[in-house]
Parts: sequence; C-alpha cells; structure tokens
Amino acid sequence: MPEYNAPLRDMRFVMDELLDMTGSYAAYGLEDATPDLVSAILEEGAKFTNQVLSPLNRTGDEEGCHIENGVVTTPKGFKEAYQAYCENGWGSMTASPEYGGQGLPSSLGLIIAEMVASANYSFSMYPGLSHGCAAAIAAHGTQEQKDLYLSKLTPGTWTGTMCLTEPHCGTDLGLVKTRAVPQADGTYKVTGTKIFISCGEHDMSENIVHLVLAKLPDAPAGTKGISLFIVPKFLPDANGEVGERNSLVCGSIEHKMGIKASATCVMNFDDATGFLIGDINKGLNCMFTMMNHARLGTGMQGLCHGEASYQSALAYAKDRLQMRSLKGPAAPEKAADPIIVHPDVRRMLLTMKAFNEGNRALAYYTASLLDQAHYASEEARADAEAQLAFLTPICKAFMTDTGLEATLLGQQVFGGHGFIREWGQEQQVRDCRIAPIYEGTNGIQALDLLGRKVLGSQGKLLKAFTKQVHLLCKEVEGNAAFGEYAKKLAQLNAQWGELTTSVGMKAMQNPEEVGAAAVDYLAFSGYVVHAYFWLKMALVAQAKLEAGSTEVDFYKGKLATQAFFYQRLLPRAQAHAEALTAGASSLMDIAVEQF
Amino acid sequence: MPEYNAPLRDMRFVMDELLDMTGSYAAYGLEDATPDLVSAILEEGAKFTNQVLSPLNRTGDEEGCHIENGVVTTPKGFKEAYQAYCENGWGSMTASPEYGGQGLPSSLGLIIAEMVASANYSFSMYPGLSHGCAAAIAAHGTQEQKDLYLSKLTPGTWTGTMCLTEPHCGTDLGLVKTRAVPQADGTYKVTGTKIFISCGEHDMSENIVHLVLAKLPDAPAGTKGISLFIVPKFLPDANGEVGERNSLVCGSIEHKMGIKASATCVMNFDDATGFLIGDINKGLNCMFTMMNHARLGTGMQGLCHGEASYQSALAYAKDRLQMRSLKGPAAPEKAADPIIVHPDVRRMLLTMKAFNEGNRALAYYTASLLDQAHYASEEARADAEAQLAFLTPICKAFMTDTGLEATLLGQQVFGGHGFIREWGQEQQVRDCRIAPIYEGTNGIQALDLLGRKVLGSQGKLLKAFTKQVHLLCKEVEGNAAFGEYAKKLAQLNAQWGELTTSVGMKAMQNPEEVGAAAVDYLAFSGYVVHAYFWLKMALVAQAKLEAGSTEVDFYKGKLATQAFFYQRLLPRAQAHAEALTAGASSLMDIAVEQF
Repeated sequence: MPEYNAPLRDMRFVMDELLDMTGSYAAYGLEDATPDLVSAILEEGAKFTNQVLSPLNRTGDEEGCHIENGVVTTPKGFKEAYQAYCENGWGSMTASPEYGGQGLPSSLGLIIAEMVASANYSFSMYPGLSHGCAAAIAAHGTQEQKDLYLSKLTPGTWTGTMCLTEPHCGTDLGLVKTRAVPQADGTYKVTGTKIFISCGEHDMSENIVHLVLAKLPDAPAGTKGISLFIVPKFLPDANGEVGERNSLVCGSIEHKMGIKASATCVMNFDDATGFLIGDINKGLNCMFTMMNHARLGTGMQGLCHGEASYQSALAYAKDRLQMRSLKGPAAPEKAADPIIVHPDVRRMLLTMKAFNEGNRALAYYTASLLDQAHYASEEARADAEAQLAFLTPICKAFMTDTGLEATLLGQQVFGGHGFIREWGQEQQVRDCRIAPIYEGTNGIQALDLLGRKVLGSQGKLLKAFTKQVHLLCKEVEGNAAFGEYAKKLAQLNAQWGELTTSVGMKAMQNPEEVGAAAVDYLAFSGYVVHAYFWLKMALVAQAKLEAGSTEVDFYKGKLATQAFFYQRLLPRAQAHAEALTAGASSLMDIAVEQF
Repeated sequence: MPEYNAPLRDMRFVMDELLDMTGSYAAYGLEDATPDLVSAILEEGAKFTNQVLSPLNRTGDEEGCHIENGVVTTPKGFKEAYQAYCENGWGSMTASPEYGGQGLPSSLGLIIAEMVASANYSFSMYPGLSHGCAAAIAAHGTQEQKDLYLSKLTPGTWTGTMCLTEPHCGTDLGLVKTRAVPQADGTYKVTGTKIFISCGEHDMSENIVHLVLAKLPDAPAGTKGISLFIVPKFLPDANGEVGERNSLVCGSIEHKMGIKASATCVMNFDDATGFLIGDINKGLNCMFTMMNHARLGTGMQGLCHGEASYQSALAYAKDRLQMRSLKGPAAPEKAADPIIVHPDVRRMLLTMKAFNEGNRALAYYTASLLDQAHYASEEARADAEAQLAFLTPICKAFMTDTGLEATLLGQQVFGGHGFIREWGQEQQVRDCRIAPIYEGTNGIQALDLLGRKVLGSQGKLLKAFTKQVHLLCKEVEGNAAFGEYAKKLAQLNAQWGELTTSVGMKAMQNPEEVGAAAVDYLAFSGYVVHAYFWLKMALVAQAKLEAGSTEVDFYKGKLATQAFFYQRLLPRAQAHAEALTAGASSLMDIAVEQF
C-alpha cells in the first residue's frame, strides 16, 4: 500500500528560499501567520494527511461510492475522516473569521490543500467544492445569504457544489436548459437536469448547498441569459438550521475511470426552491469567481498525482533489483543492482522530479499572487490580478499535462507491477486523467491564454511576465555556471514575443489562427515559465552551497534537475513553436469527409 | 456502446497500393492466397469482429475474469466467441497445413489479428498467446512434440502460454528460480512460481500448454542456464488426448488497470511434469523465437486501440454540438456547431489519424518482411531478417507510445464523457497502457535498437534502411508538391546517421551513453520512419488523384494528413535529437541521495 509523505523540505524551499512567503505575510500585516504557526500547521498537515487520508486512498478507489434510492454513501472511513478534517480546522483555514474561519492566507491554504489532495484526491474534492461554493457566496451573496450559508460552509457542517454542466452542454454554457421561474415570495422554482456534479450527493454533511446555473423564462439567448441560484438540499429553517427537504434528487452516479471515491452525480431539480445570487442574467460572472480559484486547484491536481507517483517510483527504483549497471555491479553483494542505476530509469525519475518541482514553484508563486491581490496596496493588487489572469490557464493546463506525463512515467518505472492495482501507480494515472479535461479542458485554457489574456490585452499581460524573465536573464548572463542557461532562456523569451506577434497578425485575417495555435502556444509558454523558475531555483541552490550549507544533497539535486530540465525537456519548446507556426491551414484545409 | 468497424479501405490502401501484398503472394507461389480469397477473408473478418467480438469488449471489461478454487471463468460470451473464432478458422490461417492450418502468409494473418485485437483486445490475447506457443514448438520441438501439440494448438482445441516472469524477475530472466529436476523417464519435475501469465488459466479450451523457463539443478548462473519446458495443464494420454491433471494450479489472478477480460495469472508449479523443448540451457533462444513475433503483435496493440479510439472520437466530433465556428455558424440550423469545426479538435483527430495510418504502413511493411523471410530467395530472406531485426523494436515501442498518445487524445475529444466508462474511450486508454510495458518495456526495446541492432551491427542495419530513405528522397527532390518534404526527410535521415556515430563514439568511452540515449534515439527513429512512410503514401495518393480517381476525399485526406504530420508532429524529432545529445552526464551525475 503506497503511502504519501508531504515533501516538507521541498515545500519550505519554495515557500521560504524562493518566495519568502512568511516575509510577505508579515509585510501584509497578517500577524497570526507567524513563522512558528506556519511551521506547526505544515507539520500537523503532513501528519494528518499521512495518517488519516493516505490510508483511505486505495480502499476508496476499490470501494467507490454507492447509491440507493438517491442516497449516496461514500467509501468506508471517508465520513469519519471528513469529520476529523473539519474538527482540526483544515477546511476553515483561509475563511473569514467573521464566519468562524482562521483568516490565514490563500497561499498557505493551497499548500495544505496540496497535502490533502496528494494523499487522497477523491477526498479532497468534497471540501474543495465547498470552498468554491463559499467563495461565490462571499463574493456575490447578500449579507443574509452570507450570514446563513457561510456560517455553515466554513466549519464544513454543510458542503457545497457547482452545478453547471447539462447533458448537451459543458463548455458551451449558453445552451443551458435548466429553468428558474420567479415566485411571488421572491424565490424561484428551479427545474432541470445537471450532470457531472462532483460531490452532488453524499453522506458527509448535514446539508448540501448547490449553486445552479439556470435561465429565467424571458432570459436572452446564450450566456447573457444565465442566472445563478442557491438551491440547498434541505431548505434552511427560520433558525438557519436544516429544514424541509427540497425537491431535488441525485438520479445516479457515474462509473468513471478514476477519482472513484468522489461521487459524480446526475442531479435532477424538479421545481426545487432556489434563491437568486448576484444579479439576474449575470450568473456566469458569479461562476467565474469560483472558476479562477478552481482552475489553480485543478492545476494542483497535476502536481499532487505527480508527487505521489514520484514518491512511490523513487522508492521502488531504489528497492527493485534487476540487471547490472553497465559500468559493472553497483551492489555486488546482491543478485542484481537496484534499477535506479540504469540511465533510462533515471531519465524517467528526473522528468517527474523536474515537472513536479517546476510545478510547485509555479503554483506557490501563483498562490502568493492571490495573497498579493488580497492584502497588498492597490497598485500591487492590480499587478497581481493581471499576473493571475495570465498564469491561471498555464497552471491549469501545463500542470495537468505534465502531471499526467509524470504519473505515466511513474507507472512505467514499476514495469508490469505498474499495471497492477495493488501497487497504486495505475490509480495515480486514472485519477490524474480527469485533470486535463474538467474545469475547462486544456484546449479551452489554451484559447483563454492566447485569445483572451495575451492577444486580448494586446500583449500587455505577456509583456509583464517576459519582462521579469528578461531581468533575470540580464542578471545572470555573466554567471559562469548559469550564463549559458540564461542565454537559452533569453532566446526563448524573445521568441515567445515573436510567436505572439506572428499569430496575432495572422489572426487579424483569420480568427481560426488563434484556435489552431493555442495548445502548442500554451505548451511553449509552460516550458518557458518552468525554465524561468528552474533558473531561479538553481540560483538559490547555488548560493546556499556557496554559503556552506550542509544540505549538500538537497541543493545538488536541485542543480542536477535544473540542468536536466534545460538539456532534455526544454528542447520540446521548439517543437511546439514549429508546430504552431504551421498555422490554421494545417488543420482547416482538410474537409470533414476527408477524416 | 462503441462499435468497431474494420477500416477496410485503409487496410487495402496499404496492402495493395503501398505494398502490393497480393502481388508478392503470387510471386512467392502462394497459389491459395488469390486476390479473391484475400478479399473474402477481409470481408468476413470485418463482419466477424464487428458482430461477434466488438459487442463483448465493454461487457468483458465490466465483468472481468473470475477465479474460484483455481478455476478461472472468462466473461460471459467469451467462450462461445472463442468457439466461433476457432470454427471459422481464424486461428489457423497462418499455421502449417500439416497440422490443419491454412498456410496463408503472416502478413494476412497480421491484418486479421488487427481486426480481432481492435474489436476486443482482451479476447485477442487468448489466441495470440497460443500462436506464440505454437511458433516456439514448431521451431524447436521434436517431431513427436510437433505432431502432438501443433495438431491441438492449430485448431485452437488447446491453447498455450509463455511462462517467463517471476515475482523477483521480469526483464532480468537470468534470475529465474523455477527448478526443473530430470527424471529417469526423460521428463522433468518443474517447481516454481510464475507471475503475469496471460491466459494462464481459463475456461475456453480443453487444455493449456504452458511453455516454462526453468533451471536445471546444475545449470550455470544467469541467462546461460535457462531451459524451456512444455508443461501442459493436462498430460496428454497415449492417444494425444487430454489425460491426467498435471500438478500445477492458478493461485490467483491479478486486478489490473485494463485488459480485464484477459486472465493474468499467478501459476504455481509443484513438481509438475515437464518436457524439455530445444536444448538444455538454450531456453532463452527458444523464447526469443516467440518474442520477436510477439513484439510486432504488441506494437499492433498501439494501432488497434488508436484506431478504435479514433473511430469513436471522429463520430463524436461530428455529432456533438458545442460552440460556434470562429468563422461564423457552420450549422446555423442547429443550436451549435459540431465540434469538428474547432481547430483544436481537428488537431487531436489529425494526430490520431497520422499516427494510426503511419503505424499501419509500418506494421504491414514489417509483416511483409515476415513473408519475405519465409518465402523469398535466400538472399532476399537474409535481407528481410536484417530489416526485421531493425524494425521490430521500433514497431513495439513507437507504435505503442504513439498509440497511447492517440487514445489519450481520443478520450480528450469526448470532454467529460471521455472519463465515463459507458462511452468506452477510457477503456481504450486503460487497455492500451500495458502495451509500452510488457513484452520488454519500451526502454528495453530502445536498448535493443540502439545497442544490439544499430551499434551491434556497426551501423549496418541502420544503413540498409537509411539507404531506402535516401533513394526515396532523391526520387522526389524535384517534385513540385513534395520536394520540400523530401528535403526535410533527407536532412533528418542524414542526422540519424550522425547521431548514431556520435553516440557510438561516446559509448566507446562510457557504456552508459547507450542507455542514456536509447529512448530518445528510438523516438527520433520512429518519427523518421513514419515520415518515410507518409511521403510514400502521399506519392501514391497524388498519383491516384492525377490519374483521375473518383475517391477524391480518401486521397485528399491522405495528402492533408501527410502535410499535417510533417508540419506539426515531425518537429518533435529535433527535440528528441537534442535531448539525446545531452549524453549520460545529464542522467548519471546526480547521486541516488540527491533524487
């Protein structure tokens, strides 16, 4: 049974040595988030996720969820684990103290969420969806709605969902058919079928607060006619406690490839009582509040599975004996050498390590922008918002694509055992596989990056980032150890701008050029972003070694991984650049009948 | 429920227009394999696989195999389907008429095997393993063994297995612990545990013939001390019919990620009676007879899942309505446009199409080399053997890596529905995932290609192929439509030689250079091989169009896919070249403790 151990050392490296997060907390006046408290939280989080959540990961996958007459039961142990999770306050860390939250910064919340999700992704979805629901209510709800729902969602007594997708529409929410008919008392009667509703029904909480996209009878067509409604499973009574059962039911749960302990529900609303949240016909805006946060969270899924898979693969590679090193026996006392002596096993492990640690740097940096957008001065906030807009689709798509690649490699390291369920590696692949699909497919993320964010800002959002890269390269260009890497990065950074201009020019003639370039453009961007963070991390490691740190292995590992990334993974950026340069004709000239 | 339809038109394109297989059959004097018979076989194969095997693919996955007291039951319908398969003679097509086979060429057998495996991969493993077993007995058995076992294996009355792997050894067969003790009567008592035995126990056939690798008590250490034994489940009686039960039992079956309808067994041999096949201590050589064939077959698995996934994804992309074309509504009468209008959906479909059809060309070409090695003149045979040695690891690894990529894309086209079991796309991924792992991991294939085949022949095997590529490029260089593509191919072809020389030189100093370069070298090779076949296919298509063919869509589709491959996939070759040029230090400098 594989076991997850939170990689505290690497987490601290990014938090403290790369980003100085606790320094920022102090600068933001977050007096509670002292270094001591942060350390204690991380230590406790590591313990909780290792001892309580990790052991339920395999069993949860094997058992899955059950449904009987609309009642969904989660796998054995999940309910108790969720209770412990709530009692320990893990779910309320970043929530407002006004509703019982601890008011801790988002970045710290993200790191705990990483531990929870790495230990047991299916479990993490239940509180994860609640956070999104609470965030939307906090941003768009009336004071009464906030008082009522946030006081229940914050401690986790109630959980929440997002109900967007319908059988005929996922990406294209303008096609939503669910109807909301206004009633004399100001409420609405909501009727329709929603599918793929994560945690739509389960046995963990007293009540479930559904946020449902629906259309008023006279709503304009398309996305401009969508409104958002709070539709609780049980209607709150006069005291804000669980009251009458609402008329909605879970019709069935999906049989899926992975994340089997997370109930994916078909939800049938049949004249269910709903409460409008936000303005009429502005429902999609309210949902986007949740989606940006959710997209970073989904990006994290790539890191979480990649990390869990790496931990198992590394342990296996040190333990499994097979063949001799080509240089002669490395462990002559044993029947064969551990497979970590073989170059190709190392190639696989290093690819995983490079992607995971690059993703961690990217994700924590992005989460620190969430803090900045929340706590910093006005100008700094606007800057953070702009960077968040730019980096969020990269986090979502690049972290999940590379995370999936990492899990596939982690499975490959195990050979035939990687295909067998009990070893756990194949579950990492199955669970991870949904991440490039949901929360906006990675194709949609790429359109968002190139079309809306980069070209939509006339390149401004891109330039803000490439300027940072440029400054780093300038700083490093004379450096004996890293000058060549900085040169490579500077070249790609310049090319990034050129590719953007070139696609932008072509797109003025033909709007399909954006769609034809987007996925390769995002991948190119992802490799450059990773290259930027890897160079920064290597500089930190080098400085520590020069300062005489005793953690020689840790820092030398960073340097070796940075070199590996530049030499063996970064060349892929050029393949993506060439592919996207082929333009729309390479995709659109072929007629449908010619496929 | 997804349904497989054999892509007869594309199969015929490769068979007839690219390779003129039936012309070869005539030249080899295979009088039975007339064009009419070949057509009839293909038509019937398409019908059988669509009507009988395809419907059992999803149900077989859902039900899986069962074990009770060592008795394994296959999913509902499998036993009957196997009976029909045998009665129709599908299993005996390529077997010798001496034992009831039809004596048809291997290449035709491969194409029928493609249909069977695309419709239902798990099912295809039962006859697939039997073929391997029969091939080893045909090559290395005594006349008596051949008479006895081939007369049962050919009609499929008995099935066969290959028992190599043990709990502590897969790749490294030198570590085998299973013992074979000689008896006074010339038989052996075989004792040991074998794992991952595909079709090791089931309810489809009267008897199961296990080929077991084991060591004699006084055998030399390592691979030079391994012998091969026939160990039947039931010992043949005096009439060659099922007799006394042998002392071996299936201890358990594995719970796997995919190919769930194929029983993967732990086989316990406890003083089981075995019969030596081939020479003492030469067991591995005998097994290699089976393995070369099996490796091409496993390569086919990439094509089969890729093709099945493509068929479903294409149908879905034409049917699913979501968003409008960026150029304005393509289907204004509908609520939205079919997603095949979107550039990125086309990118995914074209990637699948390019890999699948490139793989089909490569595989059929390789299979035609099997015919050549069997039927042609002596010199031509040697040439075919040399090419087979070179192409087999490329088929196994590149076809399965690209096949897995294709299935992942086919799942992505479906969006959220791709993650749901009933749509079948996620099963294609799960079933395909084993292909890069078993029959020698793709890492091992890469070592075989670069180390044993290319460097081991001082580049001779490579040069035989690059010469073919060179001649093609020469022929095309002045062509208005394809001259530029030929130039690109010629450049990569030259680089192939240079990379080989460079790695070869470095390997003389450091043997780890081969292992460090191998996987990227194989990928580079695969892209060049595909580029070669795509240029050839495009030339055929162009000629047909110029000759006024009415199949305009079919041939234009070939041309568009060739252009797509060169513009958007082939650039990856350069990334692999750069990665492998980094050399062993990029992998070996990092200490184990620094991971």
